[in-house]
Amino acid sequence: MVTTRNRQWRLTERPTGEPTADNFELTDDPIPEPGPKEVLVRTEYLSVDPYMRGRMRDSQSYADPWPVGEPMRARAVGTVVESNHAAFEPGDTVLGNLYWAEYAVVDGTDLETVDTGTAPVSTALHVLGMPGRTAYVGTVDIGEVEPGDTVVVSAAAGAVGSVAGQIARIAGCRVVGITGRDEKADWLTDDLGFDAAINYRTTDDLSAAVADACSRGVDLYFENVGGEVTDAVMDHLVDHSRVAVCGKIALYNAENGDDRLRGPRRLHQRTRTRVEGFIVSDHADRFDHINARLRRWVEEDRLQYRETVTDGIENASDAFLGLFDGTNIGKQLVRIDAD
Amino acid sequence: MVTTRNRQWRLTERPTGEPTADNFELTDDPIPEPGPKEVLVRTEYLSVDPYMRGRMRDSQSYADPWPVGEPMRARAVGTVVESNHAAFEPGDTVLGNLYWAEYAVVDGTDLETVDTGTAPVSTALHVLGMPGRTAYVGTVDIGEVEPGDTVVVSAAAGAVGSVAGQIARIAGCRVVGITGRDEKADWLTDDLGFDAAINYRTTDDLSAAVADACSRGVDLYFENVGGEVTDAVMDHLVDHSRVAVCGKIALYNAENGDDRLRGPRRLHQRTRTRVEGFIVSDHADRFDHINARLRRWVEEDRLQYRETVTDGIENASDAFLGLFDGTNIGKQLVRIDAD
Repeated sequence: MVTTRNRQWRLTERPTGEPTADNFELTDDPIPEPGPKEVLVRTEYLSVDPYMRGRMRDSQSYADPWPVGEPMRARAVGTVVESNHAAFEPGDTVLGNLYWAEYAVVDGTDLETVDTGTAPVSTALHVLGMPGRTAYVGTVDIGEVEPGDTVVVSAAAGAVGSVAGQIARIAGCRVVGITGRDEKADWLTDDLGFDAAINYRTTDDLSAAVADACSRGVDLYFENVGGEVTDAVMDHLVDHSRVAVCGKIALYNAENGDDRLRGPRRLHQRTRTRVEGFIVSDHADRFDHINARLRRWVEEDRLQYRETVTDGIENASDAFLGLFDGTNIGKQLVRIDAD
Repeated sequence: MVTTRNRQWRLTERPTGEPTADNFELTDDPIPEPGPKEVLVRTEYLSVDPYMRGRMRDSQSYADPWPVGEPMRARAVGTVVESNHAAFEPGDTVLGNLYWAEYAVVDGTDLETVDTGTAPVSTALHVLGMPGRTAYVGTVDIGEVEPGDTVVVSAAAGAVGSVAGQIARIAGCRVVGITGRDEKADWLTDDLGFDAAINYRTTDDLSAAVADACSRGVDLYFENVGGEVTDAVMDHLVDHSRVAVCGKIALYNAENGDDRLRGPRRLHQRTRTRVEGFIVSDHADRFDHINARLRRWVEEDRLQYRETVTDGIENASDAFLGLFDGTNIGKQLVRIDAD
């Protein structure tokens, strides 16, 4: 190896409200040595995702909080450099829970081989990976889409939302996306086949805009944002509608007492609406089935995707912070070219 | 018949906010004559219920709004006076959708015979009627109670809540009731077997009180009230918890813009909570099954009930208005002694 140093990002303090660059630190550490059954992986692409804001918070959740001072975790695709595990050899492309780092040592049993045949390896981090599975579970398993439904997706140009909307289209639904930039709205309608897209930042009366785009009301709301966008959509839920709660990025930086946490108390009785939160990892028994469909639709060109790639480990924290400004279109990735 | 007059209440104007006596008028009309297949019924007990506030509102819902100027509808138990329908004869005790009135003419096909054997006929309006069925559907079908669950019921001393909590007890759950008077709290714990009861009006920190009463968190919240009580309970929902939304009496009198409609934006993702509204009439295919269980439990003394009876048709509007102050314990009825 040319270098013996491993640059990696550590959480230096827990953010209060909006995270800032001061909450993270790029350190320079020795490249770790793989022990028995372990594999040394050089990161190629790492994924930064909104859910990571939750891991930075010291509170009970479905996963443990990240320890302060330690390197931060990320799903990543990389190349095997050294392997003490029989299933992997140098040069293999693998996927796993690595770090915001140039290198990582991982137990081989926690790694998967990435199919390098049909699509770029980075797609294992979005349309063919967790975001794609999340979109499928939320739309089909939790959302129970039915042909003829009107489906509204928020954060619709994001990694999950863009796939969710396309799956709903494949399922025979009218699909309306809500997003925060005209360029994203155009991508949704012109390239992804959404029936309509609403830019919530430039719309005066969001509730009226939703009504306009959904003349028969909303059967399924795929919820990624929370806050005022959600209030506007929930005005238009019809009888026996569903809300699949995947995330609430507009609220992730709110602390107790923050006004963003307050809004209409929407617990629908009249419309018999079912609102249900989900975590994709609960549905692991469906992943083989879901992966096969996602891959087929990508091969058939029925599922489009887009990546926003930030280059260099040193820019990983900026890429993460940008998620909260909506700077990314499609999946936000960090490409790492360690040498 | 001794009298030829039929006193009945009409909706004179749609309430704005809290309803008042001015919204209603007691009129004196001739007793109607039954046509072919129709039955003349003299009301014995009529039911006033929180859902009626919704019928007074001119907005789309699962049932049409009541027309202004017309007699108001009510589920009632009465005695057949005259019958042009083969299934009924004078003296029969029947149940149906009648009016806030001393007499009503109804199509015989819309009437049911009331079993006068095992329990007072008035129970057809609560524990053995719609409120009992609503409690069962919300707890079992929507709430999916599991033995060992902790179940919180709001408006717990009401017609629905008191039965819901007792069904959850029978199903092997720990049951906590929230109510607004010490006398009601005592009834829940001393007579109905609730494990704990909280008086929300005399509790400073309701969220802490719920935490205290539910040391393993809340698996099912049977929602009858909305507002701050609901916010406090929802803080303590555990993984895979459910909220069965039966009603929201604290919000029924709120108009658009009213602060009561605003509060924490609770759409849970982390806990995978399912929040689901329901209308009991959607579950009519289950009523025979449910009725048989409710009747058995009443006969076995496992299901207790209580009635708050207001005498005289002239006091029906006060009985209705009292629902919003929580003056009733158990089922609020109006007993009518027309002569």
